[in-house]
Amino acid sequence: MAGEFDLIARYFAPLAGPEGLGLKDDAALLTPPEGEDLVLTADANVVGVHILPDAPADIVARRLLRTNLSDLAAKGARPLGYLLTLALPADIDAAWVEAFAAGLARDQADYGLNLFGGDTVSTPGPVVASITAFGAVASGRMLRREGAAPGDALFVTGSIGDGAFGLEAASGGLTDLTAEHRAFLADRYLLPRPPVAFGQALAASGLATAAADVSDGLIADAGHVAEASGVAIDVAAAATPFSPAAQAVLAAAPARLAEALTGGDDYEIVFAAPPDAEAALRRLAEEADTVVTRIGDVRKGAGVRALAVDGAELPLDRRGFEHL
Amino acid sequence: MAGEFDLIARYFAPLAGPEGLGLKDDAALLTPPEGEDLVLTADANVVGVHILPDAPADIVARRLLRTNLSDLAAKGARPLGYLLTLALPADIDAAWVEAFAAGLARDQADYGLNLFGGDTVSTPGPVVASITAFGAVASGRMLRREGAAPGDALFVTGSIGDGAFGLEAASGGLTDLTAEHRAFLADRYLLPRPPVAFGQALAASGLATAAADVSDGLIADAGHVAEASGVAIDVAAAATPFSPAAQAVLAAAPARLAEALTGGDDYEIVFAAPPDAEAALRRLAEEADTVVTRIGDVRKGAGVRALAVDGAELPLDRRGFEHL
Repeated sequence: MAGEFDLIARYFAPLAGPEGLGLKDDAALLTPPEGEDLVLTADANVVGVHILPDAPADIVARRLLRTNLSDLAAKGARPLGYLLTLALPADIDAAWVEAFAAGLARDQADYGLNLFGGDTVSTPGPVVASITAFGAVASGRMLRREGAAPGDALFVTGSIGDGAFGLEAASGGLTDLTAEHRAFLADRYLLPRPPVAFGQALAASGLATAAADVSDGLIADAGHVAEASGVAIDVAAAATPFSPAAQAVLAAAPARLAEALTGGDDYEIVFAAPPDAEAALRRLAEEADTVVTRIGDVRKGAGVRALAVDGAELPLDRRGFEHL
Repeated sequence: MAGEFDLIARYFAPLAGPEGLGLKDDAALLTPPEGEDLVLTADANVVGVHILPDAPADIVARRLLRTNLSDLAAKGARPLGYLLTLALPADIDAAWVEAFAAGLARDQADYGLNLFGGDTVSTPGPVVASITAFGAVASGRMLRREGAAPGDALFVTGSIGDGAFGLEAASGGLTDLTAEHRAFLADRYLLPRPPVAFGQALAASGLATAAADVSDGLIADAGHVAEASGVAIDVAAAATPFSPAAQAVLAAAPARLAEALTGGDDYEIVFAAPPDAEAALRRLAEEADTVVTRIGDVRKGAGVRALAVDGAELPLDRRGFEHL
């Protein structure tokens, strides 16, 4: 395995934007975009814990970058760049690092951001990759978890449950599904598609009163909005959007509805907005190549409930997934 | 061990500044200081690799934060805040996390910065802690490795070699030294003192033409400046400042001079400036509670040499320490 300086020069310097100074200085230099706030988020992944141990290196890299982009999307920020720290086993081979860097290069191009800097170190343990991502949003426009008001409706982008069922599919489960559905779900787990363009449009529109990304699970993340906003939120299970593949899982096992609603890793945006914004929100979503669905209501009170068609509260075993 | 949400609420939320939004949102929100550039740096540490396995948790935290502050200092930046990701073994006890957070709190107060955000995850391996730190510097004033010109003199802050000898002392070595010298060196290794105030004064003064922090070793870091600037640098070994404790090591074993010059972890600033700036630089250093010493010259050419008193080049086994 090459030394740190070789690794950086060979695989990571080509990923650097102008802010990274060729990864040849002690630090990166970012001139903040005028009139904008910076949105900052950090996520760490341990290979074998947060991603399957046999996941290809390019998928490990892209998934980690996308989980960070999901936070930026939910805050309405335009991605700018990121810093990466990598703890690598001494016996890792150069091909792994090369594939990891290639994955980053691909998603950098797709999402329009650059590497600013980072650090690579040696570890006797598994690979630990940590990304700190930067986004920009018009001053004062960042979407917060705080701000949802009684009378608002609750909306979500994309579909829910693909992350939880996708982990199962990627792990070799859900063998009763068609190969196509299994592949769809596994892909959604391995390569989530955070609605980055829609998040920016949502922040610019001023329509949303509060937002969070769906990483801990729809119910838990709606709960985060409820708690930060000091309101109660009801989620209508029957209104929640599921992909055809997730619908196939639920058709065979209706009791797994709770897993879809509480499983993590969907990387969609759950947000509150006045009900009369629905038509405008649908248009914004269409322009950003996604969909929004009205799934619930914001009320006075506290806490989050999932309601069945008859209005009864669905019993949920867990309110979300804690990463530790 | 408590779950992620409990950990964050109990130990890390109290460390958050206003940018951290109580660590209760998906991201941090930084309104960039007007007329300033942001300086960004990231360092990861693996407990047992980059810090002794039995180092107390508060020392692990403070040392990691200070290695990041060293990069900010060398670039002339005022520390603003940082994001932290922590990969923790499932069996780590709460006392370790509490002590880690207490160490951060102490250095936050000493250096005037806040926690912006982060992530905690579980790992089957050793603790991996990663910090991304943010500083601000007047627009266009960041000290770069690039910019040293033939005719400049080379300067360094503080003393050199304490990091390398300090690791040995902290590991139970250097038993021929007095207890006082051993304790001094071990402390310098475990708790480096990056010259953050001097770095800011240096950038504001406009006197320096190039600068780097001394983390890889004086010769290697002077070499980074030489390479980035397209010049040659001579370092006069006899002029290099050593602490009384390092002098005691060298008095007993003069051949260890090469280790002092190439060992890493000093976390001082090596910089180039016109020779006639020396008096002004000394005053800046005194006001910032440190010292600067002229240790060499910048010439046309390439590469870095360490010169003995007679002008002969000292043979150095290694040009610096690679962290991987």
